[in-house]
This record gives sequence, structure tokens and C-alpha cells, in this order.
Amino acid sequence: MEKTIHFLPDDVKITVDTGENLLDAAARAGVYIHAFCGGDGVCGKCKVEVTSGEVSSSQAAPTSEKDAAKKIVLACKSTVLSDLTIQVPSKTKADGTALKRKPKTTRSISARSLDSLVGKWDVDPPIEKRFLKIDPPTVEDNVPDLKRLMRAIKKGCYECAEPTYDHPALLQDLPFTMREANWEVTVIMLRGKRSEEPDRIIAVEPGDTTGQFYGLALDIGTTTIGGVLLNLHTGEIISEASVYNSQIGYGEDVISRVVYSQRPGGLKALQGKVVYSINQIIEKICRELIISPSDISYIMAAGNTIMAHLLLGLDPKFIRESPYVPICNQMPLTRAAALGIDAHPSMRLFLYPSVASYVGGDITSGVHACQMHKSPEITLFIDIGTNGEIVVGNNDWMMCTACSAGPAFEGGGIKHGMRASSGAIENFHIDPDSLDPMIITINHTKPRGICGSGLISIVAELLECGVIDQQGKFNRKLGHSRIREGIDNYEYVIAWAKDSLTGEDIVITEVDLDNLIRAKGAMYAGYETLLESVGMGFGDLDRVILAGNFGAYIDLERAISIGLLPDIDRDKFFYLGNASLLGAQISLTDHKRFRDRMEVSGLMTNMELSESPQFMDHYVAALFLPHTNMDLFPSVKEKLSLK
Amino acid sequence: MEKTIHFLPDDVKITVDTGENLLDAAARAGVYIHAFCGGDGVCGKCKVEVTSGEVSSSQAAPTSEKDAAKKIVLACKSTVLSDLTIQVPSKTKADGTALKRKPKTTRSISARSLDSLVGKWDVDPPIEKRFLKIDPPTVEDNVPDLKRLMRAIKKGCYECAEPTYDHPALLQDLPFTMREANWEVTVIMLRGKRSEEPDRIIAVEPGDTTGQFYGLALDIGTTTIGGVLLNLHTGEIISEASVYNSQIGYGEDVISRVVYSQRPGGLKALQGKVVYSINQIIEKICRELIISPSDISYIMAAGNTIMAHLLLGLDPKFIRESPYVPICNQMPLTRAAALGIDAHPSMRLFLYPSVASYVGGDITSGVHACQMHKSPEITLFIDIGTNGEIVVGNNDWMMCTACSAGPAFEGGGIKHGMRASSGAIENFHIDPDSLDPMIITINHTKPRGICGSGLISIVAELLECGVIDQQGKFNRKLGHSRIREGIDNYEYVIAWAKDSLTGEDIVITEVDLDNLIRAKGAMYAGYETLLESVGMGFGDLDRVILAGNFGAYIDLERAISIGLLPDIDRDKFFYLGNASLLGAQISLTDHKRFRDRMEVSGLMTNMELSESPQFMDHYVAALFLPHTNMDLFPSVKEKLSLK
Repeated sequence: MEKTIHFLPDDVKITVDTGENLLDAAARAGVYIHAFCGGDGVCGKCKVEVTSGEVSSSQAAPTSEKDAAKKIVLACKSTVLSDLTIQVPSKTKADGTALKRKPKTTRSISARSLDSLVGKWDVDPPIEKRFLKIDPPTVEDNVPDLKRLMRAIKKGCYECAEPTYDHPALLQDLPFTMREANWEVTVIMLRGKRSEEPDRIIAVEPGDTTGQFYGLALDIGTTTIGGVLLNLHTGEIISEASVYNSQIGYGEDVISRVVYSQRPGGLKALQGKVVYSINQIIEKICRELIISPSDISYIMAAGNTIMAHLLLGLDPKFIRESPYVPICNQMPLTRAAALGIDAHPSMRLFLYPSVASYVGGDITSGVHACQMHKSPEITLFIDIGTNGEIVVGNNDWMMCTACSAGPAFEGGGIKHGMRASSGAIENFHIDPDSLDPMIITINHTKPRGICGSGLISIVAELLECGVIDQQGKFNRKLGHSRIREGIDNYEYVIAWAKDSLTGEDIVITEVDLDNLIRAKGAMYAGYETLLESVGMGFGDLDRVILAGNFGAYIDLERAISIGLLPDIDRDKFFYLGNASLLGAQISLTDHKRFRDRMEVSGLMTNMELSESPQFMDHYVAALFLPHTNMDLFPSVKEKLSLK
Repeated sequence: MEKTIHFLPDDVKITVDTGENLLDAAARAGVYIHAFCGGDGVCGKCKVEVTSGEVSSSQAAPTSEKDAAKKIVLACKSTVLSDLTIQVPSKTKADGTALKRKPKTTRSISARSLDSLVGKWDVDPPIEKRFLKIDPPTVEDNVPDLKRLMRAIKKGCYECAEPTYDHPALLQDLPFTMREANWEVTVIMLRGKRSEEPDRIIAVEPGDTTGQFYGLALDIGTTTIGGVLLNLHTGEIISEASVYNSQIGYGEDVISRVVYSQRPGGLKALQGKVVYSINQIIEKICRELIISPSDISYIMAAGNTIMAHLLLGLDPKFIRESPYVPICNQMPLTRAAALGIDAHPSMRLFLYPSVASYVGGDITSGVHACQMHKSPEITLFIDIGTNGEIVVGNNDWMMCTACSAGPAFEGGGIKHGMRASSGAIENFHIDPDSLDPMIITINHTKPRGICGSGLISIVAELLECGVIDQQGKFNRKLGHSRIREGIDNYEYVIAWAKDSLTGEDIVITEVDLDNLIRAKGAMYAGYETLLESVGMGFGDLDRVILAGNFGAYIDLERAISIGLLPDIDRDKFFYLGNASLLGAQISLTDHKRFRDRMEVSGLMTNMELSESPQFMDHYVAALFLPHTNMDLFPSVKEKLSLK
């Protein structure tokens, strides 16, 4: 249930769900509260006064005599029970700069955007389970079992082509399956297009098994593999699971995986690892629902080109070398079990087609999910990560590219960088007066490091408060205790050792800032180069869609502040979340949408940035916060000039 | 080179090839010569005088003083070098009955019949090897390797559909294959139908391998597996091999194989055995030609329904039980290597479609070879064996059936029966006066036993000389030393112990005769029942085609004498030989003929004789030599009444 919180004296209102953490709500509203320990309740700094309404506090605030009459709580340990008015103590209050930010975070708008972007889809899967009562054979009618089955499938459909099957193994059990339940069987079929393309039988089961009709949608990411199990009768998600891609042990990014694949046995090892991770997902889901892996009738997966190659055991060697040639873009429809996946021997695994070596099936799936190829609106589709993928276009044309942003957004190359897991600083504010931080970590533990979204928050805050300049250098004149010369270069102490989980100071250094600037610079130069290639600029965009898990956690204002996203009307931005998984899920549910996928990859034209001099020019110009050309960032220009 | 032999005093002329054995030639001409030892030169009885021309004798004839001036040779040890006149000594001469037979054996007419029956076919195989020079990728043109390959294949053919491939393994080596010979590759493709059905890529090889383009045609028989290797550029047979089907160790006939397949591990063992035998053929051929099994681009095979099931590892259990249901008639196109066949991993094995459980792909292939389905002539197609298959029809309709004749034609159920191998009596004459035999064995050794064609000769001769009556009982009144009461029943001594290889008397018994009568009766009843089912009789037949290895060795006159074949105009009979192998060979050479195969199996309607009361009536009537209704056998009636 939605509640409203009114923060005073900033006079900011925010809508939250019952049970939301009060510190999170403040951070999201852009209200600064002292909080050094990430929300762990240790530092005891985040005291606020509840002037009206009810909160539930799991830890009492240490209060002084004079505050005895007031209802003082630790924001980090309090959850919202009713509409609230919260007085932030003046000594912890921000000076008002926070008010200028228009808070806009992921969760508050992603729900809204999903429907409008993705449209409706039907529950009419590309796979079908059909229960058949078959006439038993007689001497007068002793056609082969297979023919009898096909006759029963075709019954009453004269325009339907004869069904086919493509694996001889189907035949091995057929006579026994048909007789086991007295000529009552359930067939699982890939749907064809009536007369044009025949239905394809992929499995036959004794009796009526139509009650269990599940499909698994998978997003096979370089770092994380996510899966949702759908009830294909209703289209509902009935279980979700996600695991790390256990290939990580062989390298963090796709390039290091390709390098590893070139070792003796490397390709096989990598294939085994991704299969192992997929099996973990299947096991989790099946254990939760108490079903068998063989009850899953189809797997629809999306992953980047290299993940697809590795899963299929295809050598990605030439993807890495200029001119960057994959073996194939249209991945063959495979039997999952043949890859080692714990599945019914007949179950198929479909992989979304790629467009190029570095624009993979995850992007095709995402574009397919948001129906860019159906809309006349000029849309910029962005998936930010180590490799940032960018698509621009509409229902008439689409250009796409990938740019190597480096691992900064995933915590790589950052001194205290880490992945978005427990203890990672994900949100950050600075008190513009004291330059003290407000830290919020994932799971509200003491801070352990900085994840990508935290990094963006930190850099945006440091920039807006003048702690760093537009080149990403610390203002050495400030003389603040948190700004110091570290071992190699200047740094800002985000958390002191006593407040951190690691027992050492967590800092951000000028090298970190430089890495972030390069990463965001590459993305921005990518947008510019792609738009320029079709004679367009940011002003021509009707929509910007942020896909990917990381995209879903980005604070829009701050991402614009540092120049990661273009400074255009905020209403044009949409968060799509894990678009790759969403596309797979939609295709698994609606065969008309599924069939449509080829249109997407057919429309997309790839551009290689690595060989583009235009890209290099744009990149160099973007190595500034937010950009050397401040006219491209009017709102940031205004914000920074306020100081 | 052809030579003419003029036998005196019978005044019979026969055309033979240079090098033919003189005793064989006499037997074929129906000229009786004393010969007890099968042609081994041991008995020394087969002395003849060469009155003109040259022979080559490997063993001198024992000659008396008075014959010193004459050129006396042992017929069994002499081969023809020139045109000859041969005087058969009067004491060994037949009384003339032999002259009444119009000799007509396999080899003399099969060559003639092949062309007229089978028609011409083109060298335009369903599989294609194409050498491609592919443009290497550049950054501007970095489409995936697969796409690049397909583009090169389609080049210049705009109406052609995009080629497909159906096995992910193809992709694994593709990038290396393409780069290995500097973007020059040879693709092996299954030909589609241009716009309708795409070509299918089955293998890609580096460089130009179009020089080696071989296809293997296989006849997978219950007893024997025969193979011919074709040069697919020229259509020529460049090697042949045949081996016993090593499944024989698990049973002589298909039913015993089905029984064995039901044991634990039985199916797998049987599959392994037939694969082993196929590998023997491949090994023989490859060793002879010094090629590698992977140089063979396609295998086109034909076998009966049970052989096809066993090869594919499909359980034939329900084929044996009423209502006799196979798993499938259209056998899936399989990768040979997946079955364990020593072949390129991508090589396909095609199996001719069956019509029913007991009318298999060998029959479809045979009918396809002789183009019955293209001719308006009403044709009776017969394949005689343990299971005799019968097809009747023309280009408008075809009926087919199988009848269980029992193993007599393959030497089974006969006291001294044996398969047609070395030492088997394959030809036989009787001196009508002395009732002494003229024996010819395979490979001219001393006799070891009686094979199917020998059995037909023996029974026909015994019948015509009155040694047996029309019920197959010995004429006990003759009082001849060779006719005696054996342990269980009456028998005729074909070879005395001293002349036999086994050192014991070789006999034919009344039980043997009974078994033969049942076997030929089943076949004849089969023809009648099938013809009757379409309101026809033997008079409506335009042609009778004898297929199968056994059919190729049958002496037509004698087969009619015993009632195995109908007594109609001899000019209507044709020998097709191993029609199953021939069909496979034609399909391998000409894709238009290959495509046509579905028409054949589509036209054929199966009839189950086992449940037909008409069949039982015809069968009982046929248990007589040649038949209870002698009006059905006018020429035999005349011959027998001559005595």
C-alpha cells in the first residue's frame, strides 16, 4: 500500500510502499541524512524526528535528555507504516541543493513504463501440448505408429501440413509410449505455420500431461544468468532464479572468456560452466515447485554472441580478432540435453539471433521486447555494461553498435569497486556543507565497496559539490580531512575504516574517476557516432530506453550529470530492466510475437565503432564531466553554475 | 567374347563367354552329361569328345586305348577357348527329354532385361559437391562465417532459397575450415527443390575436394548385405562388396531376429551387428580403392522393414504381433556416424521407405528401380525368399503383400539344405533312363548340400522323370538303388558318400519335398490372392519381374514345372537381380529418380494375407506339383503327360 512521506525542512514529498526503509526513501527523495555506515545502525548518525505517523524501528536511537519528548528514530532501522512527516535535524540537513534534483529512480517508473513500451501479448505459445485419443490399430488399419500419431494430430485440420519430427530418437520410445496409456498420449509440438510450415513433433508422453506445461526463459549474461519459469497455459511467471555465470572463474568479461577458450580444453570447460549454471537454475526452480526438469517443455534463451557461441560449443576465436566475425548469428535450434543441460532428451533450446559479434541475442531480445521495430518513434536503446550496446532507429530502420566501455560500471578497474552484491554502496549523498557522506549499501550492511550505480552517485555528488572538477581531479584547496593524497594519487574517503566492513578506509581515487570518465565517454561517443551516421542528433530522439540490470538501477539525474546519458527531456527516458529476459519470456508466451523476431534482427544494421575515426573524436570530447561541450548538457551546466 | 558350342547328338547350340566351364554350359543348355561329383574332377564320369575347336583342360581325362585318337576331355575341368562342337558319348547321352526344355537362365537374359525394365537414368545425384571461392571478410563486410558461406552458395541464383543445415556440429569446424585453405572450400549439399525446398549443407571441407565424390548404395538383406560404390561424377560402379549380415548368428530369418531383439540388450546387439557388417563393406571398398571412409559423401540403403528398424535401433516388437505395426515406414534421414557406421560425421544415410511390416524398403526400391509405377503394363513383381514379397499393379495402382514361404528356398528345413555357397548343388539333371544324376555345385567342388536353386532343379527333374508323383511322394515301384527308405521316410540319393564332400550320402527326402511344396504353394497362393483382390487373373499379366538374388538364379522352366511361377508366356518374364540394390544405386545417381520414390510407396497398398480366408483356400489348392488344378499349368500338363 502506498504511503506519503513529507520530509521537512526540505519540504519534499515522496510516495513509498508500506514497509520501505526510511533511509532508502530519503536517499531516493534526494534528502540528505547523515549516514556513514551504509544503513547498518552502527554509526547512529541517521537520527530523524517522526512528527506525525507511525514507523516500526528495529533499533532504538541513542537520544539526549532534551530530545526525550520527541519521537527520534534511526532512519536506517525504521520502516514506514503510515503516511509520515519527518523532521530532518537541522545539523544534518542539506542546504537545499538536493531540492533542485528531481528524483527519479528505477523502481518508481519501471512499472509504469513496462506496459506502454512492451505492449500486450497473448498466451499462445510457440510450443503446444496436445492430448490425443488415438484409435488402436487393427489388421484392416495397421499403418505405422508414427503415421497413426500424425493422423491423430492432423485430425480435423485439412489445410495443415503433415507434421514432421527431426530427431530419430523420438521413434525409439514411440510404440511403447502409445501403448502404455492405452493409446492416449500427449504430444509436444513446435508450432509451424499451418500449410506453409509443418508443426514439428518434439516429444510424445503417455497419458494426459497437459496439466504440466512449463517453459523456461533464460537470460545468459556474462556475469549473471537469470531464469523465469512460465506456466504456458496462463503465461504467469511461477518461479524465478538467478545465479552467477560460473564461467566467471575464467575471466570477468567476454574478451577474457574468448582468450580462455583458446587454451587446450578451454572451450569445453567454458561450455561446461555455463551449462552448470543453467542446471543450477533448473534445479532451484524444480526443487521449489516440486517438478521434474523433464516437465519443462521449452527453453527460450537470449545471450550475447560470445555466450551463445560458448553455450553451443562454437569457437569464438574470430570474434575477438578484426574483422570480428562470429560463426553464425542465427543460432541453431538445439536439443538442450545434447549440450548437457538437465532436460528432457527432446526438449529444444532456442537462442535469440545475434546481429554481430558484439551485438548479441540479448540485444535482439530486448529490442524485440520493447517493440522498437513496430513504432515510428525514433528510439535510442541502451544497454550499459562492460560492453555497452546501443541501438537507434524505429520501424523503418535500425542501426546498432557496441562500444567497449571497460569494466567500471561493474566495479572493475575501481580501487574499491565490487559487483552489486551485499555491502556494495549503491546510493550516496554528500552534505554540501560538511562534505560528509550519506551511504546506503545493498542489504544495509556496513560498506564493503562500491558498485556501478554507487559509483555514478558518488561521482555526480562529488562533481556537484565541487569536490572534483570537470576533469575528475580533486580540489586540492578544500583542505577537507576526507580529501587526501593516497599512495598513488589523490582520493576521497567515502567510509572510514571503523565504519567499513573490511576494516580499511573505502576511497575513490583519481584513477577511479579517470576510468569512469573513459567508460561513460565511450558510451556517449557511441550514441553520438551512431546518431550522426544517420544524420541525426539527440534532439531527434523520441525515446531513450535503458535496458539491462544495471540500467534498472541508474539514477537518471546523476547519470546525466556525469554525462553517461544525454541531457534531454526526462520524460523521454524509460527503464526496461532485464529486457533480454523479458524478450525471451514474451516469445515463450506468444508465438506471434516469437515469429516476429526475425524482423528485428533483419532490420538491425551493425556498425563497427573500433574502426571509426568519428567515434575517436567524439570519445576524446566526452572525456570530461559531463562533456567538453557544455551546451550538450544545459541542465548540468545550470546546476554546476549554481555553485 | 562370345563363343558358340554345338552339342551332339542332341543338336543343341548355346552361346557362352570365352572361359566358361564346359559342364556349366551343358547344364545350362539342358544337355545331360554324367557328373556325380559336382564338377570336382573326382568321379571322372563327365568325359566328352571335342570334335572341333579348342578347350583348356586343367585335368586330363582317363582315356582307354580305343579313344586314344580322339580328343577326350573332362567337361567339368575344361573351359571354352573357341567355338566348339562337342560329342557327348552315347552312354552318357540323355534320351532327348532335355531337348524339350527351352533353356532360359539368369545370366543369359538378365543383361537384356535390365535396360528395357529400368530405363535410362541421368548422372545428376541428389547430393552435390561444390567448390567455392569465398570473399574473405573485412570490417565493412564482417557477416558471420555461416552467412558468408551461404551467400557464396546462393551466388547467382536469386530464386534459390537460403540453404539450410540441420546439425549444429557443422558449425564447430566451419571457421577453421573456411580459413584453412584461404577461403576456398568444398560444400557437400543435399539438393532441395530450388525455391520450394532449400538445399541443405551437410559438410564443408577445406580446398577443392570435388575430385573425390563417391556414394555408397547398400542392400541390407536379412542374410547378405551388398554394397556398390559409385563415382557420383560419372555414375560408374567403381567397387562392389558383399558380406553376410552378421546378425545371422542371432537367427536365420527376420522373425528370429525380432525374437532376439526382445532379450535384454538384444536390440543393441543386433544394431551393432548390422553396423559391423556395413563397416566391413566400407572397409573392403576403401581398402581396394585406397580412399578414406570419409570420402564417401552419401549412403543410400534399402532393406526390409525389420532390417531398417534394427539398423536405426528401433524396437521391432510390434511388427511381429498382430496387427503387425511398424514404428514408421518413412525412415528418418540419419547421420551414419551416429549409428556407429565408419563415416564422415556429417554423412547421411538414407533408407528407402517401407510400405508395411513385411513389405519393406527393399521392395519399394526394387519397384522403384523397374519403374512399375511409370508403366501402364500390369506387372507382377516377385521377390522369393523366406518371406516372399509380391507386388502387382501399374502406374495407376499397386497392391502388395508378403507371404511367409518358410526357409526352404534358402536351404532351411531341408535335410541337406544349405545356403548358396561353395559346394552347394545349384544345378541338377537326371538321365531319364538310368535315373543317375548330373550334379553341378557352386565352385565345382564335391557336393556338400543343396541350395534353393538346386532344390528346384532336383524336384523338377524328379517330377518330370516320374521319380516322384505330384504329391511329392517317391514312386516306390521303381526299385532303383538311389530310391530307398531312409530313417524316417523315403528318399532319393543325389550323391553317394564317396562322391560327397561330407563323406555321407546326400539325399532328398519326402519331408524335404513337403517343405518345398508348402513354400512354393504359399508363393503361388499369394499371387492368386493378390490378383483376385483386384479382380484379375494370370491372363491379365503383361509382365512378371523376378527380383532378388535368389530370383536371379532360378531356372524358369523348372520353377514353372514345380508351380512356383505361373505357367504363362515365357517372354513375359524378366529377371531383375538385386533390385533393391539397383534402386538404391539409381537413386544415388539421379536426383529426379530419387525424388520420384515417394510416388512408389504412395501408390502401394498393402494386404495382409495371414488373415485372408481366400489365401488359405488358394494355398491348400497349391499343395501339389505343380497344382491341383492342372489347367493352370498347361505346359507342365503336356510335359508330364508325355511320359
